[in-house]
This record gives sequence, C-alpha cells and structure tokens, in this order.
Amino acid sequence: MVMVVEKTVGLPQSKQTGTLERMGQRARAASRRLAAFSTDAKNAALLAIAERLEERMATILAANAQDMAGAEARGLSSALLDRLLLTEARVHALAADTRKVAALPDPVGADIESRLLPNGMRLSKRRIPIGVLGVIYEARPNVTIDIAALSLKTGNAVILRGGSETLRSNLALVETIQDALEAVGFPVDAVQYIDSPDRALVTQLLRLDAYVDMIIPRGGAALHKLCREQATIPVITGGIGVCHLFVDESADLVRSLDIIENARVQRPSVCNSCDTVLVHRAVARQFLPMLGERMARCKVEMRAAGEAFALLREHAPGAVVLEAGPDDFDQEWMALILGVKIVDNVEEAIQHIYDHGSEHSDGILTNNIANANRFVEAINSSAVFVNASTRFNDGGQFGLGAEVAVSTQKLHARGPMGLEELTTYKWVCIGNWDVRP
Amino acid sequence: MVMVVEKTVGLPQSKQTGTLERMGQRARAASRRLAAFSTDAKNAALLAIAERLEERMATILAANAQDMAGAEARGLSSALLDRLLLTEARVHALAADTRKVAALPDPVGADIESRLLPNGMRLSKRRIPIGVLGVIYEARPNVTIDIAALSLKTGNAVILRGGSETLRSNLALVETIQDALEAVGFPVDAVQYIDSPDRALVTQLLRLDAYVDMIIPRGGAALHKLCREQATIPVITGGIGVCHLFVDESADLVRSLDIIENARVQRPSVCNSCDTVLVHRAVARQFLPMLGERMARCKVEMRAAGEAFALLREHAPGAVVLEAGPDDFDQEWMALILGVKIVDNVEEAIQHIYDHGSEHSDGILTNNIANANRFVEAINSSAVFVNASTRFNDGGQFGLGAEVAVSTQKLHARGPMGLEELTTYKWVCIGNWDVRP
Repeated sequence: MVMVVEKTVGLPQSKQTGTLERMGQRARAASRRLAAFSTDAKNAALLAIAERLEERMATILAANAQDMAGAEARGLSSALLDRLLLTEARVHALAADTRKVAALPDPVGADIESRLLPNGMRLSKRRIPIGVLGVIYEARPNVTIDIAALSLKTGNAVILRGGSETLRSNLALVETIQDALEAVGFPVDAVQYIDSPDRALVTQLLRLDAYVDMIIPRGGAALHKLCREQATIPVITGGIGVCHLFVDESADLVRSLDIIENARVQRPSVCNSCDTVLVHRAVARQFLPMLGERMARCKVEMRAAGEAFALLREHAPGAVVLEAGPDDFDQEWMALILGVKIVDNVEEAIQHIYDHGSEHSDGILTNNIANANRFVEAINSSAVFVNASTRFNDGGQFGLGAEVAVSTQKLHARGPMGLEELTTYKWVCIGNWDVRP
Repeated sequence: MVMVVEKTVGLPQSKQTGTLERMGQRARAASRRLAAFSTDAKNAALLAIAERLEERMATILAANAQDMAGAEARGLSSALLDRLLLTEARVHALAADTRKVAALPDPVGADIESRLLPNGMRLSKRRIPIGVLGVIYEARPNVTIDIAALSLKTGNAVILRGGSETLRSNLALVETIQDALEAVGFPVDAVQYIDSPDRALVTQLLRLDAYVDMIIPRGGAALHKLCREQATIPVITGGIGVCHLFVDESADLVRSLDIIENARVQRPSVCNSCDTVLVHRAVARQFLPMLGERMARCKVEMRAAGEAFALLREHAPGAVVLEAGPDDFDQEWMALILGVKIVDNVEEAIQHIYDHGSEHSDGILTNNIANANRFVEAINSSAVFVNASTRFNDGGQFGLGAEVAVSTQKLHARGPMGLEELTTYKWVCIGNWDVRP
C-alpha cells in the first residue's frame, strides 16, 4: 500500500505533478477522516504500529541491510553509516517511542480560550489538527516513525520524503505503518511516502498548497533555504544554531567551564551546541587560561579573535588555538571547535550575538541580576539561558514530551516544537439566531 | 524623515536592493530599541501621533486632495474614490482609533506559561514582539495609521507599501507619525514607507528575510498569491472568503432569512459576507420562495443550481435568478449576488463546503444539536457559526479590541488577528549553573 510515484525518466512533467497531486488529494481526504477519531482510537493505532514494528523486525532489518550495503559501496562516512543503521535494539526503541507518544496527552479538541460575548454568543478558540503536513528529511530512518507517530497523535495526515540512502528502510517502515492503520480501520493515506528519487518532486511538494498546510524540513541549511525560497506553503525553518555563551565579569568561572564543556562537547553535531564563547574583559586574563586548559583536555580546537588569541597563546600552552578568520564567528561548527572573543561588557556581547547569532540558543553566565535581566530582555533567540547550558533547548528537556523540530522562525512556533505545535485552532461561535448590528 | 527610495529609472538593480536593504537594517535596529520601551512609553507615542494627526489636518487633507484629483482624472470608480477620500471627520476618526489602541492592554512581556523543571530550572514562554513587519496594502490611507499604531503598540517596527493612488496621503500620514515618534524619543525608523511606485520593490520586500519577520498583505487574491509565491518570509494569507450558510431541515426559516440578509447584504464587499446558501431538500420547497422574495426586496441577484433554479423560477416570481454556471460556487462575489443550492443533508453541505469553500467563515442554521455538532466538527474554517451570521468573524465583534487582518491559513493565527497575533514568544530558562545530564 506504499504510494509509488512513477519513476520520472521519460515521464512528462504533468504526469508527475498529477501523481503528487493525487497523493495530496488522498492526504487531504485522510486528514478529514483522522480529525474525527477519538484520542483512544488514535492511541490504539499507535500501539498497533508499535506492535507491528516488532513483528516485522526481520523484514525491516533486511531492507536496512540493503540500504547499508549500498551506502557502504558509495563510501559514506562511518558517522553517516551509523545514522542509517537499524539494529534489533533500535527497532525496539522505535516501538517504545511510539508507545510513549500514545501515552502523551492529546492536545486536539481543547478550547484554548472561551468567552461569552456581550450579545450572548458563546465563542471558543478550539484546538484542531493542522491538516496535512509535508516533511522532508535526510538520513536517519527513525524520523519516519517519529514524525508519523506525532502526526497521527495530533490527527494530521503526512506526506514524507526521506533521503535516497534510506529508501528501502523507509519503505519497509511506511508499509508497516500502513498495515497497522488498515488493521485498526484508519485511512492508510494518513501516512504516505514519496519514493521517487527525483528531486523535482521536492519542489513540487513545496508548491502543493492546495493540499498541504505546513512543510517541516529536517536537515541542513541548504534544505531550509530551498524550502524557504520554493515553498508556497508555510515552512517551519530552524535547526541552524550559531549559539553563544557569554561569561560575564561576575560569573562563577569554574562552573562556567562545566557549562561550556557541556554545551560544546556533549553532542558537538547538534544545533543547540555552543559555537562561540564571549568573555568579559575584566575576567579574560584569569578565565582564558582555564578555558584553554579545559578545551585542550576535551580535544576542542579554539578559534580566537585578536586579544583572546594572544592571551591563549601566551597563557594556555596546552591549548590548540588558531586566530579566528573573518567568517569564523558566523559558523555553526557541528564539531569540536569553539570561537572565543573578549568583549567589554554585556552590551558588546549582545551586539556580537545580534551580528552573528541565528536566534537559536544563547546564554549568559553571571551573578549580576541587572546584566542577566538586560541579556534576557535584549536577546530574542528561541531560548535564552541564564547560568545553564544551551543544550537544554530541547523538547524532552523542556518537558514537552516530544520534539518534532526546533524552530528559529518567529511565526507559529519557536524553539522545540511538541504536539501542540502540530495543531492550529478554529473559532467556534454558537449564536441564538444572531445578526450583526 | 520619510525614507525616499530612489526612483528606479536608470538605476541598476543592485542600487535599489541596497536601498531596501538599508531600510531593512534600520527597521531591525529600530525594532530592537522598540522592544525595550515600556507600555507607558508606547502609549505616549500613540497619543502623540493622535495629537499630531489633528494638528496637521490641513497638510493631510491637502495631500489627499492631490491624490483625489489624480484618481478622478484617471477615472476611478466612485466606490474607489470614496475609499481614498480623507475628510476632517475621517482624520479625527483616525486619531480616535489611535487613542483606542493606546487604551488596549499590551500583550508584550507576559509569561504565556511558566514551569519549574524537575532539575529546578525556571522555564517561561514569554511573549515578545515579532520584530519587523512588512505590510503591503491597497487603496485606503487609513490602513497606514491603523497598522502603524498596532505595530507600535506591540513593539514591532514596520515597513509599509501602500497603493500608488494614495501615495501623497500616505506620505503625509507617515511624516506625521515620524514627527511624533521623534518628539517622544522613539526611533523614527520604526515606521518606514516605500514610496517608489516600482513594483519590483514589492518582490524585493518579500525576499528581505534577513530583516523582515512577517509579511501581511491587505488586498485581493492576486496580491495574496504574489506574496505566497514570491516571499521567502512567512506570509499571513487570508482575506478571501467564499462563505456559506447551510439552512438545515430544522432551521427556523424566518430567522434564517434575517441571518442570510445580514450576511449577504450588510456589507457586500467584505470577506466575511455570505456567498452561497445551501438549503436542505426537505425545506427547499417552503424556504426558497421566502428566500427569493427577501433577496428580491434586497436587490440581491441569485445564481441557483438546477433544482433550486427551477423552484425559484416557478415559485418566486419577483426574484432575479440565473442558472448557476460551473464556477459560480467558487466565487467570492463581493457584490449583491448569492449562490443557492439544494443539498440532501448536512453531509452533502459539508462536502460542498470542502469542495468550494476557502476556510474563512461558514455556518449552519439548525435546531438539531447532532447536525450542529457534526457541522462544527467537520468544518475547519477560521470561524464556524451555529445560528449566527458569518459577519461576526471580525476582531471587534470577537472582542479582540483591534483587527490587523483576517487569516485563513493554518499557521500562527486564524481568523481575526488582534494584538496578540502581532507577537511571538521566546523561552527563558533560568538555571543554577546547570549542565544537561
């Protein structure tokens, strides 16, 4: 029951578009049916998916083995290979995650607010599914299960487009989902997959505004840019984090080291990791040698601006430090590299973040309440931290129960998106045969 | 102090873009300053604008007289001329509206939610301004004051682009605003106006994503389509309403007539007016003659599908009725025209709205609670009505205090957008030197 998009070779443009349009129509129809299912029914569907994932273990691992063989033959890096890999344990984890989503509260149907209007009409703002989501992602096959589970929980249909390296794994997972949906009487078109490698289909998906209500890209900067430029559908952009920690004059320097290490080293390749440390001039001479020593121990290479570079060279003999180039403070390093710069005060730190940040996650380390307040007021990143690691900007850490994506745009959702962020609302107005005066 | 974009004739492309980019930079800088002003300071700025509007009455009316002369010379319709016209009374009304915005509660700064995380960190979701808005609008000069006031109240900077017919009026109004801002120590770049008639600047504004956070088009379908297709910035689309009322079997027929008259006739050219009436087959023979008589009295022309057409022709001798053409049910009439169709039941009414509606405002007229519930569940328009006129889908009627636009998209805001919808949020996380485990 996987939706097969005809291979594009030799097919006229209109035929492809037609096919994607039919997927869109089916997704829209499925979304209308989905919206009427109760929370119990949606949870039963999720549990059925979890069960079938484990039942079909052998099929899923066989499909993944084919993907792995192909990826190895194409010489993918071992880090990338690890992201593609499914093991028995990982499939069990996917099933467990799906059961966890079933256990989360369902946001759909609640009245967000409600009032009695002066003329006696009852007005409510009621939470409803968004409708049809389009999700474009790369590499990891677990995203397929993840997004499908969160979409179903919130009553949304979804059209998925994964990377070509994991096509067979993704198809096996989507077949598993669709089998489970069919078994519990849900529309199988609630979760569809675009299985053609033709990149033109991504652009077509981005312009399918008659049927798709929201696009979520999960990937690098190039994918986000493509979506922003090509989509006629609202796009949730984010995931790019040039993140900062500012060590203020009054900071606890030893604990600052722990926070910086956590923010840079714990998972270097994620978007909420710290890319640049700004150090108040008054503590630079004391702090930079400590930082150099700690970063050397963590195998972090530093890119330091002028004065910081000189200080580190002179007073942190073990540190690996290069002088920062002109674009180094605009980098999301995704690696064990850290920018370092001395600033005069909190205002200069704020200005640096304005000039170089991506409004993802930024923090101040301080014991001065005025500076903490000023920093929190001025910095409008999706999450702003005082005396905490940027690594906390995460749906799980924030207690949202699930994370669909991390948004750095201003509309609809900011920071970690949980289940509520996969919903919208409608106004429901119950009158008594009222006309507007 | 009005920002003058150089005339485009003879200027290279890069020069124009550069100018718009500088406007964007200044707007971004202004928005950062604006965000720090207190509610009292923002209200003082609004009151200063109101005062200056009345002080500069003669200048504003003189500028408008020039626009009116130009528009008359170009043969604009009297309806359009009336929309362009400013009178002494209308300028006083603009000042009064600005004072009203000052009196509204300021949504900025409130913690929308707040929790203590298990590790002791204090997490809040804090309401903040969006940043820089881009607003593209047509005809009426009052939008200039309206949008500027709502933007300032919520701490947003705004770049305005009005229609060429009202250029002089708009420039006089923006100068007035900027004078007032300067007088109270606000950044004048908080409200900027693109005064070149070059249409290419609209497209450039739509792609100024480095500086502009949200685009609000206020105009017809073509403008909304242009924005959706060209913008790399999130766009609030809406304003197009193909709106329905379904007269169910159990409806109070006399009161239904009043609601239909209100919804169609009160202001025919607005987006929440009713375009199509769907009538339950069981009451069609009784109701259609009543409807034909009432619509004839209101000078409404009907476009009726097959059976409804036959019934009206036979039993509503005074009615002006044409047989509906193939696209007539997809029209937003904006005029005294009403589509009429007989349906078998609530399900067929719902399907018609799915096929022809624009998810703006739709209602059911019924005394049957099951059908009312089914309709409200199935129809996901921005506002769904039971026994009330679609004309109520309005910020003022809903008690929002102000209306920026009516959104029919799924993300960020739906239906009437008030002050809250000009804000976003950031997560503020106060730790105690915490690292993520």
